[in-house]
Amino acid sequence: MSEKPIVVDSDVHNGMKSLSELLPFLPRVWHDQWLEMGIGAARVYYSGVGGAMKDAVPDNGGGPGSDPDFMLKHLLEQYHIDYAILNSGIEISLYPDPDYATAVASAWNDWMAEVWLKASPKFRGSILINNTDPLAAAREIDRMAANPNMVQVIMTSASSMLYGQRFFHPIYEAAERNGLPVAVHPGGEGRGISPAPTNAGYPTRYLEWHNILPTGYMAHINSLICEGVFEKFPGLKFVAIEGGIGWLPHLMWRMDKNYKALRSSVPWLKRRPSEYIREHVYLTSQPIEEPDDPQHLLQIFQMIGADKRVMFSTDYPHWDFDNPLMALPPMPKEMKRRVMGETAMELYRLPGRNGEQAVTAQ
Amino acid sequence: MSEKPIVVDSDVHNGMKSLSELLPFLPRVWHDQWLEMGIGAARVYYSGVGGAMKDAVPDNGGGPGSDPDFMLKHLLEQYHIDYAILNSGIEISLYPDPDYATAVASAWNDWMAEVWLKASPKFRGSILINNTDPLAAAREIDRMAANPNMVQVIMTSASSMLYGQRFFHPIYEAAERNGLPVAVHPGGEGRGISPAPTNAGYPTRYLEWHNILPTGYMAHINSLICEGVFEKFPGLKFVAIEGGIGWLPHLMWRMDKNYKALRSSVPWLKRRPSEYIREHVYLTSQPIEEPDDPQHLLQIFQMIGADKRVMFSTDYPHWDFDNPLMALPPMPKEMKRRVMGETAMELYRLPGRNGEQAVTAQ
Repeated sequence: MSEKPIVVDSDVHNGMKSLSELLPFLPRVWHDQWLEMGIGAARVYYSGVGGAMKDAVPDNGGGPGSDPDFMLKHLLEQYHIDYAILNSGIEISLYPDPDYATAVASAWNDWMAEVWLKASPKFRGSILINNTDPLAAAREIDRMAANPNMVQVIMTSASSMLYGQRFFHPIYEAAERNGLPVAVHPGGEGRGISPAPTNAGYPTRYLEWHNILPTGYMAHINSLICEGVFEKFPGLKFVAIEGGIGWLPHLMWRMDKNYKALRSSVPWLKRRPSEYIREHVYLTSQPIEEPDDPQHLLQIFQMIGADKRVMFSTDYPHWDFDNPLMALPPMPKEMKRRVMGETAMELYRLPGRNGEQAVTAQ
Repeated sequence: MSEKPIVVDSDVHNGMKSLSELLPFLPRVWHDQWLEMGIGAARVYYSGVGGAMKDAVPDNGGGPGSDPDFMLKHLLEQYHIDYAILNSGIEISLYPDPDYATAVASAWNDWMAEVWLKASPKFRGSILINNTDPLAAAREIDRMAANPNMVQVIMTSASSMLYGQRFFHPIYEAAERNGLPVAVHPGGEGRGISPAPTNAGYPTRYLEWHNILPTGYMAHINSLICEGVFEKFPGLKFVAIEGGIGWLPHLMWRMDKNYKALRSSVPWLKRRPSEYIREHVYLTSQPIEEPDDPQHLLQIFQMIGADKRVMFSTDYPHWDFDNPLMALPPMPKEMKRRVMGETAMELYRLPGRNGEQAVTAQ
């Protein structure tokens, strides 16, 4: 009888029952501001469907995703998930004051370690940083990387500057030094101190805004590669969470075509742009595209080498949750094992069911 | 012996030998400003390869694309092209003063009609508009649509507002009334009064800027559909020139998936978003993506129904010219006929070689 494939959920959102849950971890000087402002970066758009699945409200109260025990039961046990990568507090970089944002990120990480990572070995955390003070963010990465259950660095994809630019390099240096991938997560676009969500201003409604979030991912990955971040930090991995998949072939082809004629302007690149993507960039699956013909998504998977870079995620407890048992189209068994868990096991160096460490194939 | 397939080049750039060429068409009050400022919207990025093919300089002087007779010989005769759709002056909407921009656009159109469209029936013009004064633009469309050799409306894709928004509807109303498609052309992003080229600020170099231009196209098409422009103006066609192709499947799938949950916010839509794309949106081919495996591009072509919406173009005389004899990957003969000319013949209502009018299949 063969063992069931490992399942890693690479994008799960945990939260607090109330703002006061953070206070024990936050210096007193910031308490009043925290209780009044929180993460800040208020929503701009009304979704009409709420933010979360209605059945994700914990039995004993609190918001969806706010109770470790309920999440273990409602998500991990129900869907036979071995590990959940926890991402939260993400929009903190959109707060105007970098000192407050850095202090909150740091308190958030201590709360994550204490309340969530101690609750179950199935939970693994992302180190929250405020990226508007990159040197402080680098110190926070060094501090939290000492906790082996912290498996990556997380920041919002909403930004007034592209992520390949030199301003952010101390973050990548610290992440590489500690062997941690850097991940971005969407949703802050247009909020807080971030600019308009498109290069032509504000979409009109939530649907339109949500549809177009992946364009920011294309811009950041293009920037990371053209600026030579992966030559400067060859051990760095970049995870594009919840930003779609189907646009990646186009970006790789367009970059490679232009590179032929224009490579003299980026002499630090030693290979074609698409080769950096194939070595350094990972994507999470939710919200997975659903073409009428599922074969079309499989063609896209083959164009990008999905077995090496697409990692399954549910986005629990958000409204557009992808069910692990139903979300993905039919695909070759080996590719499915990779997407459902093996790639994440390697990237995040998670121990297997018998305690052995995954060995990176790459 | 079967007739050679019709070839339409759907994106050709013509220009002036010098700024003074416009003066006979421009009211005296704008002459000094024109001679000092021209179209305005100066380039931000240095390309390193120049803007134009070096062999496109006319025999008797002037810049590339500035001589109708030379263009006929160097482009249309050399490559057996039946029609060239001429697009120029495109960035005029990025000038801060809408009165100047409207006056220049109008003069430009008279110059186009007089100097280019009278030079050969193989040339067909795009009506240049300044879209920051939509009512004036609508009047200009009405005025120039009287010339049967004007076959579409052209504007820059760079904009501080998304093109589905109500501000721009008078333009679409006028275009529909006159049976003309509205086209956008990239290159102005970050120039003049347009915002930064991405939703996270300015790319660092020309290569990076050029790679990411298609994201603006995705945002505009998303806006046009979500705002219901194609329900309000059901006869309107939209042409996305020089913005790539490979991103379209992703956009269609993401829009359709979100529409399932969020359609209550856009009750004016009667069909799935992708169906509006299939009925109203056209793409020109240059710069065509070049995956290592040409089969991958053909798969993309099949996902989007390329036989109905991809129109061949060279971008003559720009540096990244696509050669009509070499640019496209191998594809079924019928699809190739459509892409090389038949779809453009229908969209632009061009007479065939024996003078007969194409009949729209749709």
